[in-house]
Amino acid sequence: MPKFDVVIVGAGILGLSTAYHIKKRNLAARILVIDKFNAAGQGSTAKSASAFRCLFSSYTNYVLADSSVEFYRHLQENLRIDLKMQWTGYLWLLDKENWRKILPVLKSLCRKGFGFKEYEKEDLVKQVSLNIDLTNDEEARLMNLKNVYKGVFIPKAGIVDAACLVEFYEKEFLRLGGEIRYGIKAENIVIEPCESFGIPNEPYFWQDSRIAGVKTDKGVIKADKTILATGAWISEFLDVLGIECFIRPKKRQIFCIPAKNEALKQLLFTKGFNPVGCLPFTILPHYQILIRPFPSEGVFWLGYADEFPRAFKLEEDPQPEKNFYQFGIYQVLVKYFPQFKDCRPTSAFAGLYAINTLDGQPVIFEERDLIIVGGTSGSGIMKADAIGRIAAALFNGEEYAFLYGGRRFKVSDLGLKDRRVEQEKLII
Amino acid sequence: MPKFDVVIVGAGILGLSTAYHIKKRNLAARILVIDKFNAAGQGSTAKSASAFRCLFSSYTNYVLADSSVEFYRHLQENLRIDLKMQWTGYLWLLDKENWRKILPVLKSLCRKGFGFKEYEKEDLVKQVSLNIDLTNDEEARLMNLKNVYKGVFIPKAGIVDAACLVEFYEKEFLRLGGEIRYGIKAENIVIEPCESFGIPNEPYFWQDSRIAGVKTDKGVIKADKTILATGAWISEFLDVLGIECFIRPKKRQIFCIPAKNEALKQLLFTKGFNPVGCLPFTILPHYQILIRPFPSEGVFWLGYADEFPRAFKLEEDPQPEKNFYQFGIYQVLVKYFPQFKDCRPTSAFAGLYAINTLDGQPVIFEERDLIIVGGTSGSGIMKADAIGRIAAALFNGEEYAFLYGGRRFKVSDLGLKDRRVEQEKLII
Repeated sequence: MPKFDVVIVGAGILGLSTAYHIKKRNLAARILVIDKFNAAGQGSTAKSASAFRCLFSSYTNYVLADSSVEFYRHLQENLRIDLKMQWTGYLWLLDKENWRKILPVLKSLCRKGFGFKEYEKEDLVKQVSLNIDLTNDEEARLMNLKNVYKGVFIPKAGIVDAACLVEFYEKEFLRLGGEIRYGIKAENIVIEPCESFGIPNEPYFWQDSRIAGVKTDKGVIKADKTILATGAWISEFLDVLGIECFIRPKKRQIFCIPAKNEALKQLLFTKGFNPVGCLPFTILPHYQILIRPFPSEGVFWLGYADEFPRAFKLEEDPQPEKNFYQFGIYQVLVKYFPQFKDCRPTSAFAGLYAINTLDGQPVIFEERDLIIVGGTSGSGIMKADAIGRIAAALFNGEEYAFLYGGRRFKVSDLGLKDRRVEQEKLII
Repeated sequence: MPKFDVVIVGAGILGLSTAYHIKKRNLAARILVIDKFNAAGQGSTAKSASAFRCLFSSYTNYVLADSSVEFYRHLQENLRIDLKMQWTGYLWLLDKENWRKILPVLKSLCRKGFGFKEYEKEDLVKQVSLNIDLTNDEEARLMNLKNVYKGVFIPKAGIVDAACLVEFYEKEFLRLGGEIRYGIKAENIVIEPCESFGIPNEPYFWQDSRIAGVKTDKGVIKADKTILATGAWISEFLDVLGIECFIRPKKRQIFCIPAKNEALKQLLFTKGFNPVGCLPFTILPHYQILIRPFPSEGVFWLGYADEFPRAFKLEEDPQPEKNFYQFGIYQVLVKYFPQFKDCRPTSAFAGLYAINTLDGQPVIFEERDLIIVGGTSGSGIMKADAIGRIAAALFNGEEYAFLYGGRRFKVSDLGLKDRRVEQEKLII
């Protein structure tokens, strides 16, 4: 194989956004993207809930998501590239305790001009036939479920089609002359001494050394820069090199429930929240079960990001667990939304979050000609464009990246050495 | 098996120090220590270079090491428990760049009353027949080796016998009524819902749950508190639970060279540095190869803490690598100390560091009745007593631990939530 200027491992949303933005800014560079699957976005990207929101207390979260979402909006509205973006909004159902906790955060965001709407519980009952009062439900008490006290609605939020987004970046990257080879599995990162002494098992610690490419099941691919955008698999490559990236894999599951009866249809196509005329992306109190509407398919997606004792574990083909729905999500869901009584998923899927255990924000850094792009902790889709631009700025040796809309972002803020990310307080 | 108040997994130096200090402060508590080996301290504790120093810029490092070393001194000098402690001192050989870098740190330590001694390079040559000038050595230049510019000697430092230390804690723990079972391998941490609903695969995320003990190859051991002191194996247990501890395993190797000829004997028994009349624990410039004197055995131990690309990797029985000495350590060593010319190790051993990748300091925290004690990053022996006292304070629900000599230490400073450790600047 010829030597490339850049080889990017991973044709998921981050790998392709990175590939596109580097290529766009370095048209002469020979850039190859490889992926173990036979098409783009077939790994964890395909398993995403594909929702987005632009309201965060943390500047880091906000600027990465908002600029990416504005870019997607530009693609869809101005360039007529159909990403199936729908502005469903986000609806948080809050118990009293959480409401009190986030009230000051919301107030401060309000002063900054961010838009959201407060819902009284009685109005929520009217609008979505929600069960807000579980006081007399003995089971709910044992399960530690809380009454709904308020609703908070964010209009600048919604859903998007991850496959369409991936297709955009793939197509544009190829159009600019980028190369992609599917069905190639990266096995190892290639280390080389900067100057060989011809001794066995080089490099030794007293030799300068660098990453020179990637060993795959189809042979070695050499490159000046190697970029790892392998999501949950990043640490597997880095552990071998003794490089810490603080990115850990965790399985996340989504269960699909069709709106097959009148009550569920009414819920899915709830009016009054958004221009789509559907239920917003909704988050239950305390156990933040999420209901992701998929109005064009007539289904709900249900998920829950369980922490303890969900293992940090790599799996080639993670599977959804029937019990996780039946004894987990369903038990909580049906208390608030009796419409789901006796509903079982008709399909389900599972993917791996690449969780940054430091702060949940993306990680973008370079070490010895190896660039790491990952750790999006479940918000890779909504931040992918900004991340690609920041990775491209790092590649080009620039101090700042310019995100869509012109906002500046300091590249080292997402690195590990001089990392500076604002903590998110809008966690409910 | 009966239920215990405490089960401690790991009879290494940390597990036994923790066991002793908890038992000493809770005499009525039924405490069991288990270990997969058939005796105490047979894991990474046995593979340590077993050296200590009490000069650090970081308060965290200083107070943990100094109070532990003072306790060991008390054992040896007042209680006549032979730990084979020898005050050999530490000798850093510094190149010009590193000397300039640490000079302000040393000056500030000097103002605080810490004792150390500066050596001119010419005096080093006289005292240890060191090769300080590699300017005309073409090979050394290619290897990027630096000239020795200064020496810094710390008197409050030396070597100790890890096995003797382990034996002390084991004996005292048993004397107080503690129980130890060897040859029991912990396989998994046991999770239980606080209140069972009798549904399959409990607990679910909406159930409160806790750690209830440990599953071993000899059956389940239940306990009110479970303590993990398994060194490099901690993350293996925690990954399954999805708990991040920032502790990663890295192999470290030591090679033993007997002082078989006159030149080496003279080097090993160098006079003038310390009361022992031996070479101090010596650290070479730039590639900080360490020479650990073992005067009573007439040998040198040689090691190097290689970072890139040394993998984060668990191995049941890590082995030293011949090439790591021959093409690594030896090549650098012999440039500065030609006395080692053609010397090959007569024996060697390897262990696993439990590296805390956040800051290199120990990690002591509790989650759901599970206490984690580890991450000592290569300085477990010299900090073990303080760590045991801090773990005991955490166990007793106290805000502060009182270290040997009476110094207070805030327990949460080594936790993960409110972690507060001072960065070490005396890294050369």
